[in-house]
Amino acid sequence: MANSTKKRIYYFGRTKAEGTKEMKALLGGKGANLAEMTSIGLPVPPGFTITTETCAEYNEAGGKLPPGLLEDVHENVALLEQETGKQFGSEANPLLLSVRSGAAVSMPGMMDTVLNLGLTDRALQGLAKVSGNRRFAADAYRRLINMFGDVVMGVAHEKFEAEFERIKSKYGVLLDTELGEEGLEELISAYKDVYQKHTGEVFPQDPFLQLEKAIEAVFKSWNIPRAVKYRQIHEITGLLGTAVNVQTMAFGNMGEDSGTGVAFTRNPATGENKFYGEFLVNAQGEDVVAGIRTPQPVEEMQAWRPEIYEQLLKNKDILEHHYQEMEDFEFTIERGTLYMLQTRTGKRTGFAAVKIAVDMVREGLIDKALAVQRVPPNDLNQLLLPTFDPQAQREVLAKGLPASPGAASGKLAFTASEAVQRSENGEKVLLVRKETSPEDVSGMHLAAGILTSTGGMTSHAAVVARGWGKCCVAGAGALRIDESRKTVTVDGRTFTDQDVLSIDGSTGEIMVGDVPRREPELSGDFATLMEWADEFRTLAVRTNADTPEDATRAREFGAQGIGLCRTEHMFFDPERITAMRGMILASEQSARRRALDKLLPYQRKDFEGIFKAMEGLPVTVRLLDPPLHEFLPQEAAAQAELAKALDVSPETVQARVTQLHETNPMLGHRGCRLSITYPEILEMQVTAIAEAAINCRQNNIDARPEIMIPLVGTAKELAILREKVLATMAAVKQAKGYSEALEIPDGTMIEIPRAALTADEVAQYADFFSFGTNDLTQMTYGFSRDDINTFLPDYLEQEVFERDPFQSLDTRGVGQLIEMSAKKGRAVKASLKLGICGEHGGDPASIAFCHRVGLDYVSCSPFRVAVARLAAAQAALG
Amino acid sequence: MANSTKKRIYYFGRTKAEGTKEMKALLGGKGANLAEMTSIGLPVPPGFTITTETCAEYNEAGGKLPPGLLEDVHENVALLEQETGKQFGSEANPLLLSVRSGAAVSMPGMMDTVLNLGLTDRALQGLAKVSGNRRFAADAYRRLINMFGDVVMGVAHEKFEAEFERIKSKYGVLLDTELGEEGLEELISAYKDVYQKHTGEVFPQDPFLQLEKAIEAVFKSWNIPRAVKYRQIHEITGLLGTAVNVQTMAFGNMGEDSGTGVAFTRNPATGENKFYGEFLVNAQGEDVVAGIRTPQPVEEMQAWRPEIYEQLLKNKDILEHHYQEMEDFEFTIERGTLYMLQTRTGKRTGFAAVKIAVDMVREGLIDKALAVQRVPPNDLNQLLLPTFDPQAQREVLAKGLPASPGAASGKLAFTASEAVQRSENGEKVLLVRKETSPEDVSGMHLAAGILTSTGGMTSHAAVVARGWGKCCVAGAGALRIDESRKTVTVDGRTFTDQDVLSIDGSTGEIMVGDVPRREPELSGDFATLMEWADEFRTLAVRTNADTPEDATRAREFGAQGIGLCRTEHMFFDPERITAMRGMILASEQSARRRALDKLLPYQRKDFEGIFKAMEGLPVTVRLLDPPLHEFLPQEAAAQAELAKALDVSPETVQARVTQLHETNPMLGHRGCRLSITYPEILEMQVTAIAEAAINCRQNNIDARPEIMIPLVGTAKELAILREKVLATMAAVKQAKGYSEALEIPDGTMIEIPRAALTADEVAQYADFFSFGTNDLTQMTYGFSRDDINTFLPDYLEQEVFERDPFQSLDTRGVGQLIEMSAKKGRAVKASLKLGICGEHGGDPASIAFCHRVGLDYVSCSPFRVAVARLAAAQAALG
Repeated sequence: MANSTKKRIYYFGRTKAEGTKEMKALLGGKGANLAEMTSIGLPVPPGFTITTETCAEYNEAGGKLPPGLLEDVHENVALLEQETGKQFGSEANPLLLSVRSGAAVSMPGMMDTVLNLGLTDRALQGLAKVSGNRRFAADAYRRLINMFGDVVMGVAHEKFEAEFERIKSKYGVLLDTELGEEGLEELISAYKDVYQKHTGEVFPQDPFLQLEKAIEAVFKSWNIPRAVKYRQIHEITGLLGTAVNVQTMAFGNMGEDSGTGVAFTRNPATGENKFYGEFLVNAQGEDVVAGIRTPQPVEEMQAWRPEIYEQLLKNKDILEHHYQEMEDFEFTIERGTLYMLQTRTGKRTGFAAVKIAVDMVREGLIDKALAVQRVPPNDLNQLLLPTFDPQAQREVLAKGLPASPGAASGKLAFTASEAVQRSENGEKVLLVRKETSPEDVSGMHLAAGILTSTGGMTSHAAVVARGWGKCCVAGAGALRIDESRKTVTVDGRTFTDQDVLSIDGSTGEIMVGDVPRREPELSGDFATLMEWADEFRTLAVRTNADTPEDATRAREFGAQGIGLCRTEHMFFDPERITAMRGMILASEQSARRRALDKLLPYQRKDFEGIFKAMEGLPVTVRLLDPPLHEFLPQEAAAQAELAKALDVSPETVQARVTQLHETNPMLGHRGCRLSITYPEILEMQVTAIAEAAINCRQNNIDARPEIMIPLVGTAKELAILREKVLATMAAVKQAKGYSEALEIPDGTMIEIPRAALTADEVAQYADFFSFGTNDLTQMTYGFSRDDINTFLPDYLEQEVFERDPFQSLDTRGVGQLIEMSAKKGRAVKASLKLGICGEHGGDPASIAFCHRVGLDYVSCSPFRVAVARLAAAQAALG
Repeated sequence: MANSTKKRIYYFGRTKAEGTKEMKALLGGKGANLAEMTSIGLPVPPGFTITTETCAEYNEAGGKLPPGLLEDVHENVALLEQETGKQFGSEANPLLLSVRSGAAVSMPGMMDTVLNLGLTDRALQGLAKVSGNRRFAADAYRRLINMFGDVVMGVAHEKFEAEFERIKSKYGVLLDTELGEEGLEELISAYKDVYQKHTGEVFPQDPFLQLEKAIEAVFKSWNIPRAVKYRQIHEITGLLGTAVNVQTMAFGNMGEDSGTGVAFTRNPATGENKFYGEFLVNAQGEDVVAGIRTPQPVEEMQAWRPEIYEQLLKNKDILEHHYQEMEDFEFTIERGTLYMLQTRTGKRTGFAAVKIAVDMVREGLIDKALAVQRVPPNDLNQLLLPTFDPQAQREVLAKGLPASPGAASGKLAFTASEAVQRSENGEKVLLVRKETSPEDVSGMHLAAGILTSTGGMTSHAAVVARGWGKCCVAGAGALRIDESRKTVTVDGRTFTDQDVLSIDGSTGEIMVGDVPRREPELSGDFATLMEWADEFRTLAVRTNADTPEDATRAREFGAQGIGLCRTEHMFFDPERITAMRGMILASEQSARRRALDKLLPYQRKDFEGIFKAMEGLPVTVRLLDPPLHEFLPQEAAAQAELAKALDVSPETVQARVTQLHETNPMLGHRGCRLSITYPEILEMQVTAIAEAAINCRQNNIDARPEIMIPLVGTAKELAILREKVLATMAAVKQAKGYSEALEIPDGTMIEIPRAALTADEVAQYADFFSFGTNDLTQMTYGFSRDDINTFLPDYLEQEVFERDPFQSLDTRGVGQLIEMSAKKGRAVKASLKLGICGEHGGDPASIAFCHRVGLDYVSCSPFRVAVARLAAAQAALG
């Protein structure tokens, strides 16, 4: 392409607006929107945008402006002069410009802004004349020298600042604004000296030279290390460079008839369709941001300048109708004239996001599909959980990891049994532990919230709490817990079991006292948006639930079945754990069978409850998964007690505990490996499932269990166990004289890389695959959730990971295995049902991946069901 | 294909021999060899083979003999009658037949043998007449009824046995052979009653009916569950069925001019080219096998029947020349006439295998390629290690796992430090431990052998011992070790530190006393065979070695470099471990650097020694891999001592130990994760390597280090660390004023599934990949080597695994990842060097896989180098 034929500059102003909002790649986001606003008739100070392509040309040429560019710049400045009636560098009525970078993607690190460009010693006179305000003009000039010196020429800001301090102290003033005309004149002279001393040049008195240098500085800033690194890290590729926006200055600080402000087209906190914003009279944009003066609400403009307020309201409507979005825009009033300076999509709370999306459909502004796409799924969490009143005072003691969202307060309980006892006595307690273990589950369940001093986002406490939707802050390292004395010390302050703390599971904050809370509201706009989401999504959403209560709650959130019903928690109930332990301690199969016979009625009852709660919907029951040692007490006292209960010697118990000890329990004797060595456990569980299903159906409850065999690594394991499952079900049918088909599918979790690699073999023995992405991530990466915290912070800091792979699915590695499994599995069995039941089932990015690779469902904790429904709809629409 | 055109029966005899040894698929192994022996003029009793295709037809037709088959059988029997001059069922000179199954692959579970078929009440008279021995004839008849009833008709053998016992006791005799003619006649009658009672039919008096039923029984046995299961398990597919061999009987028990025997064409123990065998006069084949009478050496036949011995020698030569192999054959002499009954490849010891292969090339019988293919690589182990004298008495106490081959004896040492002390005092000790840990390494190294009571084939003791070629028996569960009292009790017998035990690392046997041993011999035939192997192989063979001594030894065995030089063992030396521990306990980088500075000179010296030992050959150094807690003492006393040495409080040490504790150390903070968080460790190690290389080269030693970064899971980790490696090397060059290129390649271990899945990304930052198949197997299967022993026995028994996947590479799962990595890696970098350094690098089946997927080298422990060289040659030839 010949350079001469390339259009490098796009003008926006009364004469013409050459760009559109769709041209972000070429003009950057800011440039495209300035052109667009100009096109739709909004009062934008005229200017022009130099394209990103030109930036690429400049850098490819080793830092040389393409021939002809300056001529184009001159032409466009001439057009600005013509439109504004001002002249660049004029001592009568000088044209002043701002120069800003602007890439297609918002990107920190590059050169930001130079204001007041075009001021020179001569033009200073002109500005003073036109504004009738010498002090204003001098202030503008000293700002330019400082900004140009710093941003364009690389003179350290402190060098200018030192002069300012010197002169302020000479004049005996404290604030910048207190320095008068004379002082400012002196400052300009001092700044010029600083400039010359550090650049070896005099401050340019040719306005075009200023402009040329500023344009080059923007171009160069594209390749400074900080910007290059930012793009690498965020994998921003395919961009040519940054655009340069050159725009006529508008001054909000020209007197009491001037001002500046920012506004949202609707309320960004509540979503209410009411104009919302703030402004300051006689001020510049940076004054609003800096927070030196307190701005007024935008409604008060009615009293100040009703005609401008009317214009603003009109402009707001134009923006919303044109962008079909809630917009966040900046404006300036220069001597009674309103200018629109920038617009972009407005950030909003989750509450507002839902309300705005639903309202806009009702108003006919957008359609349902767009509304569904507009709400970030994770924003729904704000609507689903109690939150602390945003107005309430918070005395933050320390911060831990935001392990499970919500807001909880309570008196401190230091052991699980204490939590159980005090909760049952009606107290609201917060369970505070170093870390939790499966033995703590009943206490965790009854506590209002859980707080731990060690363990990460996927520690036992965090995973269990998320599953229940219970508030949890984990790994708060600043806590020193003394369990024996029942105290927790933070930063020198000590709290006892009679003190109340509050924890915020969304921020990780730990606060003193009982901070007031606000309860969630699930009807109204939320329900409407969810309905719309369901119209679009193709992925089903199930839940991970182990109790009828959780199942019921998840159903209220819209769960279409249970994707993972863990059976191990069921054994920790006090009346069962002894039988379970007796089973583990038995040295031969017959004794194990006797102990299992005691557990069978409990299990059956558990399943009946869950099947009933999920009537008509599938319930995938995972057979026993954890290693047996997790069920045995680790302390000598508890072991002695158990020995007594089972009428064996304490040495027997201790010996078995030692024997079952594993160096790497995650990689040990668990999952289906238990069923291979102790088939009687599988038989008991399958019997309980089949009997519960028959009992339900005989009571006209449509029970739909599915049996899931965990941790399969080879097709052979599944072949052996499937045969046992089928034989056990047949035996139950016969024993109960049940003649109808049981229709209980059985399948496996794919959580071992080898199972994924050999999915074509495994699929031959499975009706379904459920990807257990927690373990699959552990095995694929070769690190355990429990042990990752020692190096995860460094990994995130050095950007080895963008996100914790236990939270967001690693699509390149773990995802590759999932995609491979899905393909291989369906190649041999087209009817194979595919789902995911790891923590990732509730993560929007991971759900999008699941949709893309063709899974049938995702399963997540009850409180993530709504998030998953919305994310699934967005994946289908995306 | 029309059934009528299909040839179903292949005859072998004087008239014609229709089969050849190549027709195993159609005639089975036995049938093909019988035909072949007939063709080459050996005296085989004539007979015929019904094809495996016919078996398929039978079973496909639902158990019906194909039309026309019986006519063909009649025709072939007629030909047998004609050749032998006997007649089927004749009361003058009856033809007797044996019927045997015989598939293409040796396969237990199917119907075996029916002898003496064709005997009826009438033929009995004929046999008595012809043999002149009524007792012989009656004995043959009662055997037929028993065998036919049992094997063909399914009558339990015990039913016949009970009658035999009854009649023996009636006649007052104890042994079967003592029962006279009269008793046998009575037994025949009783047997016939048993037969009729349990089959509902009289014993068939039509010899053709006997034959028909026997043939059908063989066909049916192809599909009995035991046989089907055997084929499934061993993945024997593509076979049509079994053949049926019908052959004229030859009797070795017809008197003093008859006999039977088995022989090898060469000595199967030594390989010496000398006829070797045993025979019994007046006996049947089963008598030789049963061991009731002691057979005579075959040379003694010269005295008994010189002309038959001459015939045998001649036949032996014919067999060897024809088969070009050492053969194992059976023969029978019926009344002075020699018959050859079967031939197959002879089993032999490793010593014999090598000698026979080399001798046969010298004799011009086979070529070098065939000789290299003839020796099973693992057989070389017998030649490479000391072995117990096979003639020596062994009093076996117990058995453990054959963890590391060899033969060792010594007085018992119960701790590593005791082993060090006593060894240094010149005592030969056997280290006896429950299990070993890295702290025991120096004691393990000095002990003559290692014996543990827990831990499997891949436990610490086993892996370390194999690496050194030191004899080790692991997991001997019968041992009760009392460390404090310094005793070990086995089965009620107690041994102290003054008692001597011997352990056989090839069998796992633990023996009392000092059993005499025999030292290996590495020259002669062994060296010749190795030379030939090297001519054929394309895979290079490196070794895993951490010391100059191991490196030198491996080089003697033919290693072409070091594929894995672990650096962690280097830190356990008493003078270094304190500095190492100081580094780990340091709370900040500067203190860590100071501690590392102390370690640097040691490391540099280690590397100089190894580079020198491997001069001119590559040495791949793996940077620190294990989690840091492995270096800290776990006992309170040792922790206190360390605290004193480092001048910190015992609580500091204890706190750090607790802090470093990991739930799953295998999945924890180790490998390259250490270098990401503690880059100073990497810097120290790389500095030591680079300085050592420069020092060597400046002394004219051609040092060729390669730097290997372990446990990489993401390309980003490697990118970060490679940059640090390169920067460190550049700094060393500058500091030492070394101006030449260092040329130290750096690469990574592929041992995390994710690294394999994303090998295209990882390869961008690697000069080589080395597959760490130990960890890769752990992660791919999701089980740890340390914890597999609880379920591995069940997995092997239930045939989930054919072999322990830590010993033989799982080609379907783990191998799939290796193949994928190799392809993806080379697609982006054709020059990428690929090797394997896990335990599998010394396993022949795994080596064949490595060859197939195009690796450049395998690396194994020094004592497996010869095995690997041979296996690599076979892979190239195969």
